[in-house]
Order: sequence, then C-alpha cells, then structure tokens
Amino acid sequence: MSEFRKDPVQNRWVIIDPDYPIDDRGLYTVDLPDDLPALDPDCPFCPGREALVGPELLRYNFIPKDGVDWDIRVVPNRVPVLRVETQIEKEADGIYDWMSGVGADEILIESPYHNDLPHRIQPNRVEQVFWAIHDRILDLRKDTRLNYLFYFKNFGHQAGDVVVHPHSRMIGTPFIPATVEEELLGGEEYFDLKERCVFCDMVKQEMKAGLRMVAENEYFISFCPYASRYPFETWIIPTGHLSHFEASSKNHLYNLAEIYTETFKKLHKVLENVPFAMVMHNGPLQEEDLPYFHWHLEIYPILTCCPGQAMGGQIYTNPVAPEQAAAALRGESE
Amino acid sequence: MSEFRKDPVQNRWVIIDPDYPIDDRGLYTVDLPDDLPALDPDCPFCPGREALVGPELLRYNFIPKDGVDWDIRVVPNRVPVLRVETQIEKEADGIYDWMSGVGADEILIESPYHNDLPHRIQPNRVEQVFWAIHDRILDLRKDTRLNYLFYFKNFGHQAGDVVVHPHSRMIGTPFIPATVEEELLGGEEYFDLKERCVFCDMVKQEMKAGLRMVAENEYFISFCPYASRYPFETWIIPTGHLSHFEASSKNHLYNLAEIYTETFKKLHKVLENVPFAMVMHNGPLQEEDLPYFHWHLEIYPILTCCPGQAMGGQIYTNPVAPEQAAAALRGESE
Repeated sequence: MSEFRKDPVQNRWVIIDPDYPIDDRGLYTVDLPDDLPALDPDCPFCPGREALVGPELLRYNFIPKDGVDWDIRVVPNRVPVLRVETQIEKEADGIYDWMSGVGADEILIESPYHNDLPHRIQPNRVEQVFWAIHDRILDLRKDTRLNYLFYFKNFGHQAGDVVVHPHSRMIGTPFIPATVEEELLGGEEYFDLKERCVFCDMVKQEMKAGLRMVAENEYFISFCPYASRYPFETWIIPTGHLSHFEASSKNHLYNLAEIYTETFKKLHKVLENVPFAMVMHNGPLQEEDLPYFHWHLEIYPILTCCPGQAMGGQIYTNPVAPEQAAAALRGESE
Repeated sequence: MSEFRKDPVQNRWVIIDPDYPIDDRGLYTVDLPDDLPALDPDCPFCPGREALVGPELLRYNFIPKDGVDWDIRVVPNRVPVLRVETQIEKEADGIYDWMSGVGADEILIESPYHNDLPHRIQPNRVEQVFWAIHDRILDLRKDTRLNYLFYFKNFGHQAGDVVVHPHSRMIGTPFIPATVEEELLGGEEYFDLKERCVFCDMVKQEMKAGLRMVAENEYFISFCPYASRYPFETWIIPTGHLSHFEASSKNHLYNLAEIYTETFKKLHKVLENVPFAMVMHNGPLQEEDLPYFHWHLEIYPILTCCPGQAMGGQIYTNPVAPEQAAAALRGESE
C-alpha cells in the first residue's frame, strides 16, 4: 500500500510505494574492472600528468613516495561553465533577467591514486578532501560577488561523470541554487514558528527512532530521510547545530571522513558499484551562523533512469521505503 | 561564453553555455524498428486485448473498421501508485507528516494503433486525446479530496517508459505537485506586483521577439523558453489567458492538436527518435479562473543522462541556447 510523506524542510510530498516495481531491465552499475590500476598512464588526473590540467588552485603535498608527492589538488575545470575573470553584468531583456556567467568551476582531485573509489578510499585521505573544500570556501568567499559554493560528486556515467579517477567539483555562483534556497526558506519558516532548527529536530527524531539510521559517530549521523525521493537516498549530517560546513573543527572533519567512508562501504555492500550523485547543501558564502539552517551531504544512488514523473512536477515515486533501505544498509536481513 | 538566465515564473537561474560539450558518448535515441506494425499481437494496449488491462474509465467509440472499434481508452494503471478506494488518513509521525496514498493513477491509451508515434499521429486523433484528458478532469474533480491532476507522457525507456504503444498517464493527488506550486506562487507574486499574468507577458514577448518561436496558430504558440533547463526544451501555451486546461473550447482543442503534431514533427526532424518527457502544468482541480496562472505543456527532450549537478541543487547547465534550438526547429540553417 502506498503512502505520502512530506519533507519537513521543503514541504514536498513524496509517494513511497514498496509495491511499485523497480525497472526490470536491470539496475544501473558502473562498469569497472576488478583490477583497476592504482596509476593509469592515460588518466589526466593521475600523477605525472599534472601539467596537462592547468595551474593549481590548491595542493596538499606529502613526502614523496613512488614518485607521488601530493595528496590533493584543486584545478580549474578545463571546460568551465563559469569563470571568475568574467565581469559581472546584469541586464533586463523585456520581462527576463540576464547576468553574465561569472563564477568558479573547479575540480577537486581527491587522491593521486586512480583506484581510490568511494568505498575503498581511506578516512585520512577523505579528511584531506574535506579540508580542501574548507580551504577553497575560505578563499572563494573573499570574492563578494559569489554567494554560494556548490560542492558535488558524480560517480558513474549514468550520473554524468566521465573520468573514473576520484574527483569532485565545486561551482561558485552569484546566486543560491534553487533547492538550497527552498531549504533556507523552509528552515526559516519552521524556525519562526517553533524557534527550533528543523534539521536539529530531524536529527533528534532519527537518533531516537533508530529505524532509518545507517551509521553514527561522535559528531555525525548518516540516515535515510523520512521522505526519501530516491531508493537508498542517504544523508550525512552533523548532530550538533552548524549552518556552515566551513565552520567545522578538526574533530568534525575527522569524524566526517570516518562516517563518509563507513556509509559508502555500506552502500557498496548492498548496491555494489551503483552510480550516484552526492551534493553538499551548505549555508550561503556571504552569511554565517544561521540558526535555522544546518549543512549536510545528500547522496542519491541512481538505480534506474530518471522518471519524467519527477522531472516535470517533482512528484517522486520511491519504491523502497527508507526504513527498508536503512535496515539493508545496516546489514540486517529483511 | 556562458550566461545566467532567470526563469521569470519560478525565479530559478539557469546556466546557458553553448561552449559546454554535449556528452560525447552519443545521444540517446529510442530504438524502434522502421516497420513498427500498426497492430502488435503482443502489446497489452492493442485492440483485441482490451480485457487484459482491466475495466475502462473512459472510451470513445467509432464505427468499427478492420475489427477496431475505439479511438481512445482510459484504464486504471495495472500497478497503481495511488488508489481512489483508499480512505484518506493523515497522521503526524513526530515532526513528520504522513498521509495515506489516496489518489488516481490512470493510463490514457491514445490510439488503437501501435505505431501512432508522436511525430506521426494525426491531429484529429490528438484532439480526441485532449478531450479525454478534459473529460477525466471533469470526472475526477468531483472527488473533492483530489486537488491536482498531473498529466504526463514519457517516451522511450530513458524517460522511464516501458510500452511503445502511444499512451500517457494521469495521476490525481490530494496535494499540488511542488513544481506547479512554485509556478502558482511565482505567478501570484508577479501579479501582485504588476497586475499582469507573467505567462501572458511571456507569450507577448516571445511572439514579438520571434527568435525563440517554434510554431504558431490561432490559439497557441510553441517556443523554447528563455531560461530553458534542457536542450530543445519546448513549451506549448495558449496565447489568450486561460488558467485551466479543462476550460478549453472546441476551437482551443482543435488548434492544440494541430500545434502539438506540428511541434513533434519538428522535434523529430531535428532530434529523430529522441526520448522525451512531457507534462501539463494546469490550474488546481478545485479552483477555477486564476488571473495569475496559465496552463501549458512542457516538453523535455532527453538527449543525455541527467546530471547530478541538476539533481541536487537545481543548477541546470544547458549547452544549447533556446534561440539556437528554436532556429533549428524552425528549419533555419545555423
């Protein structure tokens, strides 16, 4: 029997219908050889080809070993959709609004090793990834034209990804992306009404209920949200209130790296090499310490192709209840 | 050089970047044999197998010819995500809102003929399709628990479609889908400010500018919207103000069928058998004659797989400017 569940932040109804058939033409998978090499001479992101991808915006070095001397590199996207060099110009075109494509478009190379897949990468390396995002935010927010840094990672070509080498992307924009704007508005409305952060309420209820929990450590939980739009949708969120990722402490990022790798190991155990999209929803660049917003990561495994039903109206039909998904991820038999 | 364009209804910025590469692993296409038969004995929607798909909710008959005696049939979805028989129940689950899955889930079989593809179907048959939607709306709005009827058509398995036989789907829900709600709110804000319908303003500007126009007749235009999220996104909209599709006159539906077939012929000429999703955005079931909303059809050709960039934040990057798309659809050389 199907049911409707409402997302408490965005006030969007989702249909959860465990009887709804999952597309029977097979589930998506990222086709990777078992013996993916640690270094691939043809990969543009592997060591030895650094000069190919242009000047570095950030680099974490380490003591050279086997000819590899870096942990993390951030480089401008070779085909950027936005450029910081662009002058900001705004114009009306009749009733329409136009703005020049000013912004940042950067690639974060998460590891020198080609085969550091999300379920295999070590927590200490992931911690470096999060420090790199942290440092790029500190740098980019100095450009007051930019109001948001959109961090995301796509894995697998069904998620729009081309290169296997572990990497993610950061797009800095003068505007706040629509989905984040909706969360900010929803969070503010809830706060006005209840004087509490809706995300904090969610975290407390999930920890208490337990049935949608995936993993937990000192500073973070991962869970399948109540109104999950996609099967096995999973969020990672700090348990204490924190609107801005860049205000994280060392202990936060250490714990974040730990729960990140644990969560991806669990996802891989159940869904194997499933393609996914992961996004960070963060507070706006030019604001700080919002009482009504709470930064988090959202992971959407892409099991089948996207339904037009969701495309044109945001009516999502999810055939896997989040309680069922979370139990599977926790390793409990169904 | 990329640019930002703002959707005047939903206030969502889109990146238009003609330099952005379209996925080079080939464009999606719906794999159909050239000699698709008019009648397929294995198709559940073809004549002769009517009993298989359950009781009819609507049927338009015609004088029997070659053993075929109907034009249009509407049947309940065999695996419905929602059922009208369900009692409406609402509950709080802590901070979350829950509601039983009450609603309608119907399949509109658009033709008895298996090969009546969108670019080949005749206008007089399409007019019957629109009359069927009209009649289902009149019937379903009597159920005052339902506040919206979501009409959509997916073509091709990349759009989530399984059956080739021309069909579309109607889902009736107690709530208004998030995207339509955003359009209603955006339309109302614009109206409060300017005392004009934003859609009417858009139609006037498009007709005057011409460069994004695809087709035009007495009552309708089709055009590629200014802030198109997808390459070749195309809308069909009545030129006169009309918030509710079901308030259409006979002349409206005749002209709608004509522009619909003309638009799909043009899309097919440029994009061949491209998968697509099409949705109707209509006024809410239990309201009528809204001065700030204007019903329309939105067509999204699915050229490549969906980017996670759009999934998690609604930041869309469109590599084909709507002016370029519209010129190609009008048959002008680039």
